[in-house]
Amino acid sequence: MTAVKLTLDEVRDLAFKCLKANGCDDDNAAASADNMTLAEGDGCASHGLFRLPWHVSSLRSGKANGTAKPRIERLASGVIKVHGDRGFAPLGHRVGREPLITAARENGIAAMAYTNMYHVAALWPEIEALVAEGLVAFAFTASLPYVAPAGGTKPLFGTNPIGFGWPRGEQPPVIFDQASAAMARGEIMIAARDGHKVPEGAGIDAAGHPTTDPNEILKGAQLGFGGYKGALLAMMVELLAGPLIGDMLSIEALKDDAGAKAAPHGGELILALDPARFGDADGFQAHGEKLFAAIAAQEGARLPGMRRYANRKEAPKTGITIPRSLSDTIAGLMTN
Amino acid sequence: MTAVKLTLDEVRDLAFKCLKANGCDDDNAAASADNMTLAEGDGCASHGLFRLPWHVSSLRSGKANGTAKPRIERLASGVIKVHGDRGFAPLGHRVGREPLITAARENGIAAMAYTNMYHVAALWPEIEALVAEGLVAFAFTASLPYVAPAGGTKPLFGTNPIGFGWPRGEQPPVIFDQASAAMARGEIMIAARDGHKVPEGAGIDAAGHPTTDPNEILKGAQLGFGGYKGALLAMMVELLAGPLIGDMLSIEALKDDAGAKAAPHGGELILALDPARFGDADGFQAHGEKLFAAIAAQEGARLPGMRRYANRKEAPKTGITIPRSLSDTIAGLMTN
Repeated sequence: MTAVKLTLDEVRDLAFKCLKANGCDDDNAAASADNMTLAEGDGCASHGLFRLPWHVSSLRSGKANGTAKPRIERLASGVIKVHGDRGFAPLGHRVGREPLITAARENGIAAMAYTNMYHVAALWPEIEALVAEGLVAFAFTASLPYVAPAGGTKPLFGTNPIGFGWPRGEQPPVIFDQASAAMARGEIMIAARDGHKVPEGAGIDAAGHPTTDPNEILKGAQLGFGGYKGALLAMMVELLAGPLIGDMLSIEALKDDAGAKAAPHGGELILALDPARFGDADGFQAHGEKLFAAIAAQEGARLPGMRRYANRKEAPKTGITIPRSLSDTIAGLMTN
Repeated sequence: MTAVKLTLDEVRDLAFKCLKANGCDDDNAAASADNMTLAEGDGCASHGLFRLPWHVSSLRSGKANGTAKPRIERLASGVIKVHGDRGFAPLGHRVGREPLITAARENGIAAMAYTNMYHVAALWPEIEALVAEGLVAFAFTASLPYVAPAGGTKPLFGTNPIGFGWPRGEQPPVIFDQASAAMARGEIMIAARDGHKVPEGAGIDAAGHPTTDPNEILKGAQLGFGGYKGALLAMMVELLAGPLIGDMLSIEALKDDAGAKAAPHGGELILALDPARFGDADGFQAHGEKLFAAIAAQEGARLPGMRRYANRKEAPKTGITIPRSLSDTIAGLMTN
């Protein structure tokens, strides 16, 4: 038997206990465990318990702070700073959420400048929490130098995801959360492990030549999606999640890590817009639905996130599975 | 002789007089003429006088309003609405700029919801004007249905550019302005005219099959850059420049045009962030420079916009050239 079946409660419990055993207090452990449970329930295994060992190594190396007390500072009427205190991202999201929502409703638009934290997760959970309040939201975070700049050949930018969400009232929101790199880092590593080629455009070798060999890309650099355009988005994310908010560039995060191989230390910028304050409070939602209906009417086209929501409906009934090897690894991390 | 040489003053004068001869008042003509002159001086011929005939047809068809009086409405402390009064975009940018800058400085972040206007230009001029004030800026605008949604086969989204700018003090700013489509509409039309193939990934034929024949793409649909990721960005731009601000989707703009082939009628969302209010007022600029230096240090890599700024330095001395055919066309548009 190569797979282990778990209920979502068991997922949460496993993650919570493992984080506690490795130095997290209740608040920090619960926020991150909930986040991983949400990912497992949505069928995003790559952001579920699969990330737990990385949390643990980040804690054991002394990099991430399991007892972080994220703190709010209002930098301007539209700018909420969250000092992350070197914790994992989800607790700071919880702490910053209400002030951000309030500021967005007051001003029409507001930003959360979240610094000094470890982001080991997808962006859609924090976007979804804002969109559930009827807001439109963006999120940007950098990571470690993997992606070459436009025209260049050496890793400089993180895979640098951009997330965006739009509210749909009672229906699940439209959210996308996509790397500025052509491929996720993890996909390239998995292809290398399994001996598969990757598609053209994913990366270049150490000499700067295009290659479909993931091992060569890991020695060289990843590329932005669609070539230079994705690379420019990756540059934008560096500026927004780094210099704008006074946090690290991906090249600085690598230095900061100093070989510990912890999660990327850095910042995140979140923008929240209240569509009720943009001139069409009564009509914007039905108007968005008109676009979504036109998308859905095309054979083969679908809205982003729909597979996740389908999984979310089923997972409480069916539970989820994780590989036996991951289960064993986590068991081994339960004692410090 | 197939090219006509003009000084920048002559470019401005030609555009101004032609717009005036076709129903624009001084303010509207000057704002659009300045915009086309800026593009010519920067070597962006595709957004220079090349666009003048489209301005004229938009005016002559009665779609665009040459005597528009753009009007400001403050929807929230962070949201400036500009009612475009069916004018061309540049005059509304002028009218909305100061209120947007003031709101961004007050709140840290502010938005301009610009509606009911005709955008026939690049996004970088309005971004550059904000970045010159030390702000970080985004701009988004939709157009007409050319691009298929992710997984779909029929045109639904505009080519939907996203612009972003970052200030660099005394140095020219870093600005990019790129379509969410793999190729600009104009490039595909030029390839069709000249009988050239286009790169794979640019579009699909009417049956939904990939093709490199621009004529087939014009009958089918363009694709987002990097495939589905670019298509999702195009969807985001539709939502931001349309439903969010109470303006039209690209499919609605096509209906509104009703065969007039005027410029796209619709909206634009501009976001302005004041980096002085995001927690690192003294350091953000030098920090951004660290990233730009790392980019510039890679052979082959360069910052976006640098070719434009090089052209901008030369054009006042050398003047610019336009094709004789365009010069003749414009001459023919001088009498209504």
